[in-house]
Amino acid sequence: MRLLSSLTPLGQHFSFRLRIVISFQSCNFPRLFTMASSEESLRNTLSQKQSAVDAQANAVRALKAAKAAKAEIDAAIEALNGLKIEKASIEKKLQAVVTGVGGDGALNRESFRQAVNNTLERRLFYIPSFKIYRGVAGLYDYGPPGCAVKSNVLAFWRQHFVLEENMLEVDCPCVTPEAVLKASGHVDKFTDLMVKDEKTGTCYRADHLLKDFCNEKLQKDLSISSEKAAEFKHVLAIMDDLSAEQLGAKIKEYGIVAPDTKNPLSDPYPFNLMFQTSIGPSGLLPGYMRPETAQGIFVNFKDLYYYNGNKLPFAAAQIGQAFRNEISPRQGLLRVREFTLAEIEHFVDPEDKSHPKFTDVANLEFLMFPREEQMSGKSARIIPLGEAVAKGTVNNETLGYFIGRVYLFLTRLGIDKNRLRFRQHLANEMAHYAADCWDAEIESSYGWIECVGIADRSAYDLHAHTEKSGVPLVAHEKFAEPREVEKLVIAPVKKELGLAFKGSQKNVVEALEAMKEKEALEMKANLESNGEVEFYVCTLGKNVLIKKSMVAISKEKKKEHQRVFTPSVIEPSFGIGRIIYCLFEHSYYMRPSKGGDEQLNVFRFPPLVAPIKCTVFPLVQNEQYEQVAKVISKSLTLSGISHKIDITGTSIGKRYARTDELGVPFAITVDSTSSVTIRERDSKDQIRVSVEEAASVVKDVTDGLRTWENVWSTFPHHASAAAED
Amino acid sequence: MRLLSSLTPLGQHFSFRLRIVISFQSCNFPRLFTMASSEESLRNTLSQKQSAVDAQANAVRALKAAKAAKAEIDAAIEALNGLKIEKASIEKKLQAVVTGVGGDGALNRESFRQAVNNTLERRLFYIPSFKIYRGVAGLYDYGPPGCAVKSNVLAFWRQHFVLEENMLEVDCPCVTPEAVLKASGHVDKFTDLMVKDEKTGTCYRADHLLKDFCNEKLQKDLSISSEKAAEFKHVLAIMDDLSAEQLGAKIKEYGIVAPDTKNPLSDPYPFNLMFQTSIGPSGLLPGYMRPETAQGIFVNFKDLYYYNGNKLPFAAAQIGQAFRNEISPRQGLLRVREFTLAEIEHFVDPEDKSHPKFTDVANLEFLMFPREEQMSGKSARIIPLGEAVAKGTVNNETLGYFIGRVYLFLTRLGIDKNRLRFRQHLANEMAHYAADCWDAEIESSYGWIECVGIADRSAYDLHAHTEKSGVPLVAHEKFAEPREVEKLVIAPVKKELGLAFKGSQKNVVEALEAMKEKEALEMKANLESNGEVEFYVCTLGKNVLIKKSMVAISKEKKKEHQRVFTPSVIEPSFGIGRIIYCLFEHSYYMRPSKGGDEQLNVFRFPPLVAPIKCTVFPLVQNEQYEQVAKVISKSLTLSGISHKIDITGTSIGKRYARTDELGVPFAITVDSTSSVTIRERDSKDQIRVSVEEAASVVKDVTDGLRTWENVWSTFPHHASAAAED
Repeated sequence: MRLLSSLTPLGQHFSFRLRIVISFQSCNFPRLFTMASSEESLRNTLSQKQSAVDAQANAVRALKAAKAAKAEIDAAIEALNGLKIEKASIEKKLQAVVTGVGGDGALNRESFRQAVNNTLERRLFYIPSFKIYRGVAGLYDYGPPGCAVKSNVLAFWRQHFVLEENMLEVDCPCVTPEAVLKASGHVDKFTDLMVKDEKTGTCYRADHLLKDFCNEKLQKDLSISSEKAAEFKHVLAIMDDLSAEQLGAKIKEYGIVAPDTKNPLSDPYPFNLMFQTSIGPSGLLPGYMRPETAQGIFVNFKDLYYYNGNKLPFAAAQIGQAFRNEISPRQGLLRVREFTLAEIEHFVDPEDKSHPKFTDVANLEFLMFPREEQMSGKSARIIPLGEAVAKGTVNNETLGYFIGRVYLFLTRLGIDKNRLRFRQHLANEMAHYAADCWDAEIESSYGWIECVGIADRSAYDLHAHTEKSGVPLVAHEKFAEPREVEKLVIAPVKKELGLAFKGSQKNVVEALEAMKEKEALEMKANLESNGEVEFYVCTLGKNVLIKKSMVAISKEKKKEHQRVFTPSVIEPSFGIGRIIYCLFEHSYYMRPSKGGDEQLNVFRFPPLVAPIKCTVFPLVQNEQYEQVAKVISKSLTLSGISHKIDITGTSIGKRYARTDELGVPFAITVDSTSSVTIRERDSKDQIRVSVEEAASVVKDVTDGLRTWENVWSTFPHHASAAAED
Repeated sequence: MRLLSSLTPLGQHFSFRLRIVISFQSCNFPRLFTMASSEESLRNTLSQKQSAVDAQANAVRALKAAKAAKAEIDAAIEALNGLKIEKASIEKKLQAVVTGVGGDGALNRESFRQAVNNTLERRLFYIPSFKIYRGVAGLYDYGPPGCAVKSNVLAFWRQHFVLEENMLEVDCPCVTPEAVLKASGHVDKFTDLMVKDEKTGTCYRADHLLKDFCNEKLQKDLSISSEKAAEFKHVLAIMDDLSAEQLGAKIKEYGIVAPDTKNPLSDPYPFNLMFQTSIGPSGLLPGYMRPETAQGIFVNFKDLYYYNGNKLPFAAAQIGQAFRNEISPRQGLLRVREFTLAEIEHFVDPEDKSHPKFTDVANLEFLMFPREEQMSGKSARIIPLGEAVAKGTVNNETLGYFIGRVYLFLTRLGIDKNRLRFRQHLANEMAHYAADCWDAEIESSYGWIECVGIADRSAYDLHAHTEKSGVPLVAHEKFAEPREVEKLVIAPVKKELGLAFKGSQKNVVEALEAMKEKEALEMKANLESNGEVEFYVCTLGKNVLIKKSMVAISKEKKKEHQRVFTPSVIEPSFGIGRIIYCLFEHSYYMRPSKGGDEQLNVFRFPPLVAPIKCTVFPLVQNEQYEQVAKVISKSLTLSGISHKIDITGTSIGKRYARTDELGVPFAITVDSTSSVTIRERDSKDQIRVSVEEAASVVKDVTDGLRTWENVWSTFPHHASAAAED
């Protein structure tokens, strides 16, 4: 986040993982810049009302001191109470405005999140890592159902992107030598600003403390003036652009102290977020745990280009672990120290960013939030993707194609399309070299979360590695016919230069040859008009006098057989853990039990991601039914449908509840030896099918070959008994 | 490997990853202990022949010096030459014996390995990581086809183990805090002995240098005596049991120097093989990159047991990266610094290690190499698994079940069953707590490679984490009826003790209560016979006199409602990278091109693991054929069959060769708009099918629903034209 300033060439590439869109205010983005008029007028009214209350309270006191008549005092008190009620009403309105939705929205979000996380942790979707050793902040395990969801999400990612698009998948190590991450810029720039409790040494992220302070003031202190409120909002908006010094000055100005101890804080200083280690036994080869998987692809560009028959465009992909040594992780599963990334690097000719399959996605429509709409205070709105590309809102077809594919990927997983938007980076969020960048943001109880970054990074990364490694990472376009091009030719006359500069001749020759076209043509003009020219030779640290006889500068026509260029790269980068967490929130709901006496948890996962596709229940504990359950289980295994038999004697209603809470879409209940029922999780509809058909019906619906509606209209319905819920 | 001594409780668990069975000698394991008689007699004969040659050479010199008659000298020279020829013949025989197979076996293995690796690297199955920065030893990337093979192997592993056996899969971070690896023993014991070049500081593994020296002597220096040869072999055999001092002494004794510089070497000292890092910004929480995935499962035992309804047995599984900071990695893809492990921890009641599905695998027969056979000089032989368990060769049914499942897993991947054996650990290889341990070893050009370790580790790991974390990792068995058990009761009489010991009373009480059963019963007997007894109280550091009135010791019957115990764990642990490398070697072969003018490379991967299942070739470049190819491609995508279209104008023979080299099992050639041919890679048989059927035929054979033989007998055959190879 702190890297998003346009001064930081790496900002855009690093932005993913770093950014969680600040808070709910940012849904109405312009409020970060100009305060919404309702809020401003409410703050002003509140301030006036406060003055009126104070004045009336003084009046009451004065009447009491003057021992005025009781009736008079009572009337004054009544007026004071009236003013207080009016003030409370304004406060309530203001509270509602600053916390977003209807006053207790924040509270609802908190309690919703609590309910989801309780269920997730109780059913072992995830577990705080190393729990028996009191855990480590920012590290989580996926337990059995979470692990199954993750593996389904990754399998679908591979199907949807790698296989369908014929991408070249690679698998590189996490341990990475320093040279690679020096070239990419991570060694120097992948930092967060940190402050320390001056007494205990506890570390905090400087921007977090400032952000918390401003948010706290804005949301809980209704007495601040509208000017002060505007200032805090401004600070929140520009926080990512603040230097260490500016951040430190703000912390001092607001008197912010260590939250746990109230001790004073150190000045902010940068802390590199990579886990450092040492490769081999000598201690001489520093290494890091990779902060992203992309670099492994960039350094292999040459081989991959060759593998692709030296043809562009092509895409390479990688799924793997990445690491960030967060200063103080918060926000649970959303900001962790180790996470799975899935990244695509699509290499393309910078002169042709069209995409042959763009028409496949051009008709998709979804929430987009272009830069201009953010700046002018509008909201995200539904835009057809074809229109966004045609109008130039989205920079090019390839970028647009990936936006469309990401939309399809996320919604097929079960992300609610009404809580998914594509937000374009603002100018100050984007690196100077980036052509365009859009984030797929998903709304969760934490706000809008950046889950996929889709960026046109131009040639930046390949350039950087070409420069540092000395290996040209370039592509070639062979011309059908040789093409004539004009080339600048600088020909130093060594004999003349040798006579004039003796031992320094070599430096002068090199400096002449290194001139850029503009400089050379200026020299040519000067030599032609004046016969000589002053010329600065940096390796000598001084000017020398170049005469017309010493160098010949000309433009010549040459034939070229090919064009050599550095490809542009379009990078969709997926934070798998974040997507999964948002999916958990979007899939979760509660519904009353049949008796209405308790609330039951359900995850409405589509079969594609459900951790288990089907449970098999013998209705009562009996040898025959268990035998049938085993037969069905065997068919399900043969069909590759993950499932579980539950032969506990628990009531069928309880078993359904248990399976709903894991998001299992189908339950087969064995209540006879010839036919069984299949229940769909969300509708609770039940059909009756023969034992032989059961597995194939579940398989067909799971694989998307049939819909439940289709099955429902084909098979006889089963009315559940009271006990079966 | 150095950890395999029985003194090292961690040995067996660490053995995997550490061990590559030393060399080809170990195929005939006893030769490590007693020299094969043919070799010994050859060495003796050679030594005698050398003496004879020396003596005869002296004789010739003496004759020459004495200016004897030419005829006499010539006769002596002829005799000398005869002796030399005899000596050469013995040398040749000895060479053949020491290098294993027929003299140039080692050479053949080298050149075979070279051929496989050339193909693997050229076709980007793997790439040395960070190549453009000159790479890092022991780090490799999987390129596109390698990555696809890996992903297929892992998907099949998940299907074969996790889904079919209903295992609880978890996914834990690589970054691990020190406490966990301190408890597991890795912080203290996961080391290799290292020596340094005293001038340059270059590091070497001490045992590698000693091993290389001995092997070099044994294989290349034919002049060494049979006693010396026996000594070197003995050193190789006991190398893993040598202490740092003993290893250092041997290195000194043999005068071993740094291989690159011939400089002297330091004494050996332990180097911890974990990549160390620091978690969080404080620098106060040391962490390591996990050296195995197993610990993540052990620390979650309590939650997983609960998730499984507090029932045993159950298995948990994890696939993930593991890290070993090797001192100086060699053996290419087999010994690397980062690798993928797939581990299973099957938790079972130590009193009942039967397995309900053992009968499913009992009839399997394959190469097994029990401990006794290794010690008595026999070879691995085919043993039915049921027999091995029944006779107690394999310790228990659950261990046997997993051996069988591992056999099925590896052979279905394409591992040659004749080059796969299950070798039991020798007593000195196994940790003291382990009940039994078998390695799945696969023969490759590097020798027999340990690829899967299958160990019954008893309760060691759960005990260790219980002790260090303070969280009991135990299971409960509820009794149907309460059971009566006898329990020792020690009841100190505090009043009497207080009078006698005053301030020290508490120490005495604690010491009495801490007595083990045997000690307490002895005291009881002594008190009854003598009325008093001397008793050492360690917290006081002295003996005290205990009288009969001071303590009551008795055995009482109690009712118990459940048994609390620490489960045993049976651990199959898979080195995925090693399995894949062996699979590459077992799948690779060369065959002449149709013209016979060149050798073509083929990988005979089964469809299950083939990186791409099918290629689609339009026979000639033409719009219509390309259209048909696209239609087929679309059907293949819908069927989930990974494939590639090759529309280059290259000859069909060349395109087949290219696809064979990637191990693609099927090629569809479009040579008309109505029907196409499908070619099977290994037989080169071609059938003709309609365009509509093509995808489903390939799908059926790929998914194992039909065999190629079945397809071959169903469809018309296509005789290929000369050009099509």
